Amino acid sequence: MTSLRDLQQLAASVPALDAAAMDEATQRQDRLTKPPGSLGRLETIATAIAGMQGRSRPSVARRAVIVAAGDHGIADEGVSAYPRAVTAQMVANFLAGGAAINALARQAGARVVVADFGVEGNLEAAEGLVDVKVARGTRNFLREPAMTRAEAVEAMLAGARIVSGERERGLDIVGLGEMGIANTSAATALVASLTGTPVAVVTGRGTGLDDAALAHKIDVIERALDLHQPDPEDPLGTLAAVGGLEIAGLAGVVIGAASQRIPVVVDGFITAAAAMVAVRFCPAAAAFLLPSHCSVEPGHTPALAALGLEPLFDLRMRLGEGTGAALAMQVIAGAVAALNEMATFGEAGVSDRTEA
Amino acid sequence: MTSLRDLQQLAASVPALDAAAMDEATQRQDRLTKPPGSLGRLETIATAIAGMQGRSRPSVARRAVIVAAGDHGIADEGVSAYPRAVTAQMVANFLAGGAAINALARQAGARVVVADFGVEGNLEAAEGLVDVKVARGTRNFLREPAMTRAEAVEAMLAGARIVSGERERGLDIVGLGEMGIANTSAATALVASLTGTPVAVVTGRGTGLDDAALAHKIDVIERALDLHQPDPEDPLGTLAAVGGLEIAGLAGVVIGAASQRIPVVVDGFITAAAAMVAVRFCPAAAAFLLPSHCSVEPGHTPALAALGLEPLFDLRMRLGEGTGAALAMQVIAGAVAALNEMATFGEAGVSDRTEA
Repeated sequence: MTSLRDLQQLAASVPALDAAAMDEATQRQDRLTKPPGSLGRLETIATAIAGMQGRSRPSVARRAVIVAAGDHGIADEGVSAYPRAVTAQMVANFLAGGAAINALARQAGARVVVADFGVEGNLEAAEGLVDVKVARGTRNFLREPAMTRAEAVEAMLAGARIVSGERERGLDIVGLGEMGIANTSAATALVASLTGTPVAVVTGRGTGLDDAALAHKIDVIERALDLHQPDPEDPLGTLAAVGGLEIAGLAGVVIGAASQRIPVVVDGFITAAAAMVAVRFCPAAAAFLLPSHCSVEPGHTPALAALGLEPLFDLRMRLGEGTGAALAMQVIAGAVAALNEMATFGEAGVSDRTEA
Repeated sequence: MTSLRDLQQLAASVPALDAAAMDEATQRQDRLTKPPGSLGRLETIATAIAGMQGRSRPSVARRAVIVAAGDHGIADEGVSAYPRAVTAQMVANFLAGGAAINALARQAGARVVVADFGVEGNLEAAEGLVDVKVARGTRNFLREPAMTRAEAVEAMLAGARIVSGERERGLDIVGLGEMGIANTSAATALVASLTGTPVAVVTGRGTGLDDAALAHKIDVIERALDLHQPDPEDPLGTLAAVGGLEIAGLAGVVIGAASQRIPVVVDGFITAAAAMVAVRFCPAAAAFLLPSHCSVEPGHTPALAALGLEPLFDLRMRLGEGTGAALAMQVIAGAVAALNEMATFGEAGVSDRTEA
């Protein structure tokens, strides 16, 4: 399969972090006019970005949030509080600028790129919409695999191509976002499979299920995993069995960005599941991930732990769309600004503690 | 004492939150294109700001961080890792734009206003520097009160006047920042006194004390509290005994801002101590406080708890200057942008769950 070969080659091209750039950044941090280490995680974030970008004075000036959209056959099982039509309606809302991600991305100075990996209906062409539709939604994974392996690979490669296109427009950092009614069910199945965590522990209320609907959602996902018996050592097979087209696309965004030394900001639970698929397929991509928030979805915590990411904040958000990533980009931009723009003790004529 | 009367009148003029504006904001939040409550604390923050500003569509477009500077006589006791001259040197760094607060305030779109409430040396007049020097630093509170009550009141009124001046330049939200070598000792003494928490629990390493120096700092503060026996029911007396001129100034900023319906973003431990003095003197001001981060200083946690503030994030920062407040302003601006800029379900033509 040629396209699988392409994906494998892309994954193999992901570089290691640049240790020399990180050393230089760390040395600079210690000469800046502040007690050593007193900016805490801002310092480690900026140093990590230096390593990702391969320069001791990194930049995150050009920012985008890629909002991947797709529909889910599993929605037929009544696992979401909202009707499936909302996926396409919300894509229209993103394109009109009226959604939460639009407001928060504007604040963060990030452009919003909406990518249709698998929305059921036809979407009109629009500025800001990338058409990479692989299928009109996934199949109902309670009965059959959500996708073929070929579809999963196609969506992943399309995600990587979007990064290449955005890089040509100018891209220093990318945030992951998503929209897809019922996609917490797909993410739950993926995270439960890939981490070996019980479904009941990972499953949450999504957009707002009550207790009975939550119990039903757990039952549906447990039965689906019984049916497919996905192998956690086979991330592509697991993705095809119980994942989503937008989740596959985001996994491709991660690998594509990492291959081009572009830092990736993870958003909520769905994007963490996508990042986990990417990292299982391409372990080197893990070093290019940055955390944003911890959401209300209970599966977000084990997913972030498996990715080795410590969230920056917990504001009890549970919206997705990339909203947490957009907020985090501002903190990350602050971290980079401090590293780049602060004066050293020598430049500012400030006495260091060693002179005390 | 006329100026105490002025301060009491100012405190008495602080209004209550506008319940009608908050109701309208809450109702709008529930019509916006997202599951109800899914933006978590962003929703409660924006609603609180609606109540503070008295309008259901609030604005935080015009932003300033007021960095209050002052020297401390207690520095003579060897309680800081840095020499006292650093206070004035860092003020010069702020004015030259080379400090962490400059980089982070630029990111946050906030202007930096540096106010000299009590720096020891003479500072040259400069753009962005407000001269409200009350004294050339406090006295050594291990031997005598740090200030007279009259000096404390004078600094508080000066803080309130700075807010009035900034409001004329345009001010929708203000962040608290500070610089003063040894001011964690003053803040520790204040928080320990006002909350009844043992000094050993509240005291931290400030800019970077080792174990022996930390034990010495605890001993100095315990002896000072034994000497002054400050009465927690008398916040002005406690402030005068063991506080700082910049801390008094920030307490005045809080009361002045609250009196003009301007939200106040608390920064780290020192500014929390200042906010606590303000709230003990003027309980109505508490409703105008917004949290930012939780710092490494152990006393920050009991101080925020006493203020009823839940921090937005913990990035293991311990720098002060207003750096946490500047970062938080971006999150707060996102919260307000979501409330103001998002489309409703009706406007966007998105199906609400009730139609499912």
